[in-house]
Amino acid sequence: MKELKTMNLLIIGSVAFDSVETPFGKTKKTLGGSATYSALSARFFTKPSIIAVVGNDFKKNYFKLLNDNNVNTKGIQVVNGKTFFWKGYYSYDLNTANTIETQINVFSNFNPQLNDEFKNMEFVFLANIDPDLQYSVYSQLINPKIVACDTMNCWIQNKPKELKKLLKLIDIFFINEAEIRQLTNEYNIIKAAKIAKKLGPKIIIVKRGEYGSICFYKENIFTIPAYPLENVFDPTGAGDSFAGGVMGFLASKLNNSKNLNEKLIRQGIIFGTVLASFCVEDFSVKKLLKIKYKDILDRYKKIKKITFFENIK
Amino acid sequence: MKELKTMNLLIIGSVAFDSVETPFGKTKKTLGGSATYSALSARFFTKPSIIAVVGNDFKKNYFKLLNDNNVNTKGIQVVNGKTFFWKGYYSYDLNTANTIETQINVFSNFNPQLNDEFKNMEFVFLANIDPDLQYSVYSQLINPKIVACDTMNCWIQNKPKELKKLLKLIDIFFINEAEIRQLTNEYNIIKAAKIAKKLGPKIIIVKRGEYGSICFYKENIFTIPAYPLENVFDPTGAGDSFAGGVMGFLASKLNNSKNLNEKLIRQGIIFGTVLASFCVEDFSVKKLLKIKYKDILDRYKKIKKITFFENIK
Repeated sequence: MKELKTMNLLIIGSVAFDSVETPFGKTKKTLGGSATYSALSARFFTKPSIIAVVGNDFKKNYFKLLNDNNVNTKGIQVVNGKTFFWKGYYSYDLNTANTIETQINVFSNFNPQLNDEFKNMEFVFLANIDPDLQYSVYSQLINPKIVACDTMNCWIQNKPKELKKLLKLIDIFFINEAEIRQLTNEYNIIKAAKIAKKLGPKIIIVKRGEYGSICFYKENIFTIPAYPLENVFDPTGAGDSFAGGVMGFLASKLNNSKNLNEKLIRQGIIFGTVLASFCVEDFSVKKLLKIKYKDILDRYKKIKKITFFENIK
Repeated sequence: MKELKTMNLLIIGSVAFDSVETPFGKTKKTLGGSATYSALSARFFTKPSIIAVVGNDFKKNYFKLLNDNNVNTKGIQVVNGKTFFWKGYYSYDLNTANTIETQINVFSNFNPQLNDEFKNMEFVFLANIDPDLQYSVYSQLINPKIVACDTMNCWIQNKPKELKKLLKLIDIFFINEAEIRQLTNEYNIIKAAKIAKKLGPKIIIVKRGEYGSICFYKENIFTIPAYPLENVFDPTGAGDSFAGGVMGFLASKLNNSKNLNEKLIRQGIIFGTVLASFCVEDFSVKKLLKIKYKDILDRYKKIKKITFFENIK
């Protein structure tokens, strides 16, 4: 692909090994992690930079793979120890990940220090990781334009105070349906989003797995189904790819200091929907590495077609 | 409302008493039944006629209520015995109805005989009821233009042969997500729809509760989220209202022998989505009786707004 040189999207999150089992097969210690999936999706729109840490068991050719695919890895530290590891499975209900084991490993002592280039980045995605680390990165930023974050059930449960401190500072909050219910103690998604907005984020994007997403921006709602797929092999990373698509698109469009507006958010969500749909069509990051920008545009247009209906006079 | 006089939609299904409990309240022996909900939704577009049977415990003022609301009740027989009765509950997951008790009662000996007017109707909705009764009505029709049916888990389980005999004759098959999986023994909805199509129906519309619906027509897919609601009180009848909206709209539009086309199906599905969204906002048929056609049009336009996004050049 044509290399995109604008480097304005910073992503902190995990770069990890995943072992995943689904009804359709399994993988052992393949490349994964929230920052990996997000960056490999955002790279179609901008050149993302990852802030993360890996152990000395991390394969050198993964750095090459990321670099070759338009991802800046200069912010990935290598330290003695083992790389973050997640083991999980999915049954036929591919909407729910079941964790067997999470080894934080080298992330437990990670203290990210941004260089000047990173500190000056305007678009920041704090992908799913310990909210203390997300906050640490945030607090080093000089003048960010749009800051988004994701989180997951274990942080909502174990670090609610730290998460809420972070949410006060957030523009776009990506969260899945079960997690926003957990965070707000409210079952209805509209009510839950209203409660979540009071915690700080201007925009809430609730991810609903195979049912798509629903976005709350000012007083407006935008909702769109997922792209219908006949073969879903592995949902791991779908949410990260979704957010990576949204943020990559926004970083590319808002670079010339256009203001964030609903048109762009909606388009970004469609790109996120497309990236997530590719992500789940193969194990690990395989499919994300195979597709071209043209494939993304094609699927964007297909989503337009499959959701189109005429107005009534 | 202005009375619609075109009488071309025949609905067979249950006219019943429901006792329902949800986290938000409960009702005891209120008006319900698949034909009731469908007809009270279709009536905004045409004058539907119900074929059903009730016991002598059925309240006279329910006939008046239906008649006053543009529903033809001449095909509802009254016999000695008790009216069909369903008792169920929903927990916070309002997508799943839990049956406590079903008393078929007078429906167990029902042998519907259509008069000439009914036999000549062109649009027919075989709402959820024993497939033998659905078939019996179908077989009396002289020259139907569009025949749709719905079904439920107990018929898929207990009368698969009878259901499959019926499906061979069907144009539009309404079925919910769990049920199409049960019918086809396939988890993936696209694959399940392909299998279901081979059973006969030209169009499959899969209902996904609060996540909306997905329609399979020829080689095309149309999918749309449900209308987002902050207050859902009772999902009973949502699927019937949805189908009633689709069929009422199609009956009104195709009356002048226009052919069925995708534009109309998609518009019908939006009307169905709107009717279902009103249905669940109060117990029993209360909200369906309160709304005006203007309210339906307003919500149709809102669905357009909340799902709109711009194309990419």
